[in-house]
Amino acid sequence: MSTPKIAVAPMAGDEIEKAVVAAGGEVSAPEEADGVVWTNPADPQALKELLAASPARWVQLPFAGIESFVSAGVIDPRLTWTCMKGTYGPPCAELALALMLAGARNLKEHFAAQTWRPGGFGTPERRLEGATVVILGTGGIGSALSEMLVPLKVSVVGVNRSGRPLKNAVDTVTADRLIEVVGDADFLVVTAALTPATHKIVNARVFDAMPAHSWLVNVARGGLVDTDALVDALSDGSIAGAGLDVTDPEPLPDEHPLWKLPNALITPHIANTWDMAIPQLVAQVGRNVALFAAGEPLEGVVDAEAGY
Amino acid sequence: MSTPKIAVAPMAGDEIEKAVVAAGGEVSAPEEADGVVWTNPADPQALKELLAASPARWVQLPFAGIESFVSAGVIDPRLTWTCMKGTYGPPCAELALALMLAGARNLKEHFAAQTWRPGGFGTPERRLEGATVVILGTGGIGSALSEMLVPLKVSVVGVNRSGRPLKNAVDTVTADRLIEVVGDADFLVVTAALTPATHKIVNARVFDAMPAHSWLVNVARGGLVDTDALVDALSDGSIAGAGLDVTDPEPLPDEHPLWKLPNALITPHIANTWDMAIPQLVAQVGRNVALFAAGEPLEGVVDAEAGY
Repeated sequence: MSTPKIAVAPMAGDEIEKAVVAAGGEVSAPEEADGVVWTNPADPQALKELLAASPARWVQLPFAGIESFVSAGVIDPRLTWTCMKGTYGPPCAELALALMLAGARNLKEHFAAQTWRPGGFGTPERRLEGATVVILGTGGIGSALSEMLVPLKVSVVGVNRSGRPLKNAVDTVTADRLIEVVGDADFLVVTAALTPATHKIVNARVFDAMPAHSWLVNVARGGLVDTDALVDALSDGSIAGAGLDVTDPEPLPDEHPLWKLPNALITPHIANTWDMAIPQLVAQVGRNVALFAAGEPLEGVVDAEAGY
Repeated sequence: MSTPKIAVAPMAGDEIEKAVVAAGGEVSAPEEADGVVWTNPADPQALKELLAASPARWVQLPFAGIESFVSAGVIDPRLTWTCMKGTYGPPCAELALALMLAGARNLKEHFAAQTWRPGGFGTPERRLEGATVVILGTGGIGSALSEMLVPLKVSVVGVNRSGRPLKNAVDTVTADRLIEVVGDADFLVVTAALTPATHKIVNARVFDAMPAHSWLVNVARGGLVDTDALVDALSDGSIAGAGLDVTDPEPLPDEHPLWKLPNALITPHIANTWDMAIPQLVAQVGRNVALFAAGEPLEGVVDAEAGY
């Protein structure tokens, strides 16, 4: 195919359309498109309706975690689906690192203080150097984080479905050994995709196995963690604290007990903001349109079976 | 010399004495010591008195920034002085990284929030990737920080006395060019020693030259920054914020305006706590006693002329 026809919907998006053209594509209406770049992180139903009236064989999604589109039944396996998995790893890993350091250094308490407390708040500040960091999920975020941790001289243990080694990790184990490896963890960082197999994978049993001084960090999806069990673990001192960029439910309601816990460090899903994501999405659209035109395998292809 | 006599004072310190013996030294009273390990980060006057009654030719200090001992006139240039410069770099660099990430991600505001604010607080969250980081001072902290920033894909510009290249920096300039290089900085991180030449080196002219979105981070000494000018810069938006582990005056008095500024992120001198420092001090004492016994050059020798 020489000039693929690409629809950009539901929001048009100048930069994305420019990238389509620069990569050798032509911007078209969905009704005659070979491919669709979907620009709304929500509303799977609207995409389903669009595709029902489109001959498109390829759909590019603008985010990495596609579980809401999977459960809405929109991921038709007869089409090729691509998403931003992998690509969005580094910004999310930066926030994971920020939350780890914030926990280790008691930053929430220090930032709220209105007086100089050299002795601190009873919990000693800690270094990352020498710590053991269990990274649950070894895709884009986990890989980027393990690389960022190299100069900090921590020991990384990866956890994934296959046990395939995470680069820069001293060990990588399969998910059935999560309980075992968190026993030595100073940090458990959740970076996995949310699927039926990972739903509430971090639960009361995991918190019971974690050391009392250890921290949970979640920059992936709230549903990977059993929130009620987390509230208990933070309240009774089973773990030292949690840095959460995602929650279940999300948005976290004002009356939720997590807001009142001094050892819950909450950020409102800012690991990869839309402002950060746009340039990356534009770049991937360009690369994928060029690959699509050449009939080559695309970047970020969704495994419909696995759900990510 | 086969068995150097080493006094550990004013606090004895079991671990340090064990390290002395393990390295081939003998623990002795100051009156007959060849070397003294000084274990009090304060009280230069007491050290002066001890040395007046001691034949010691070498003094090991337990901290990195020795300016209060220099100004107390205790650094007798006829003796060999060693301090922890260099050694304490990594823990301080960890906190510098924590404060940079906290600034970039608006963590002070997010941690204080009691409601989910996806749109944030008006200042967009930022990534470190792609940022320009000016590191003022290229000793132990600056070197460790520049290494930690490699996987974060920032551009580091070093600033020091000599212009001697900082490893991992795209450029290193002499201190007279500070004003020039901060014009492109997303972060100015202060990691230098406090000397007469660096006192208030970060002043109103520097803040005027920095971009409005940029952050100051200081993990070195409060006296390197003109505090009044900093309060003005934070109040009038000349810079976006400051992460401060050290202040001038220090401790920061309760009534100080910095406490009330939402864009001042203050930690109470916790970059390298005594708990973190002890193992490093013990290790350096061991190495230096062995070197001293062998008549070889010691680690962390103070340049009495330069004041660090």
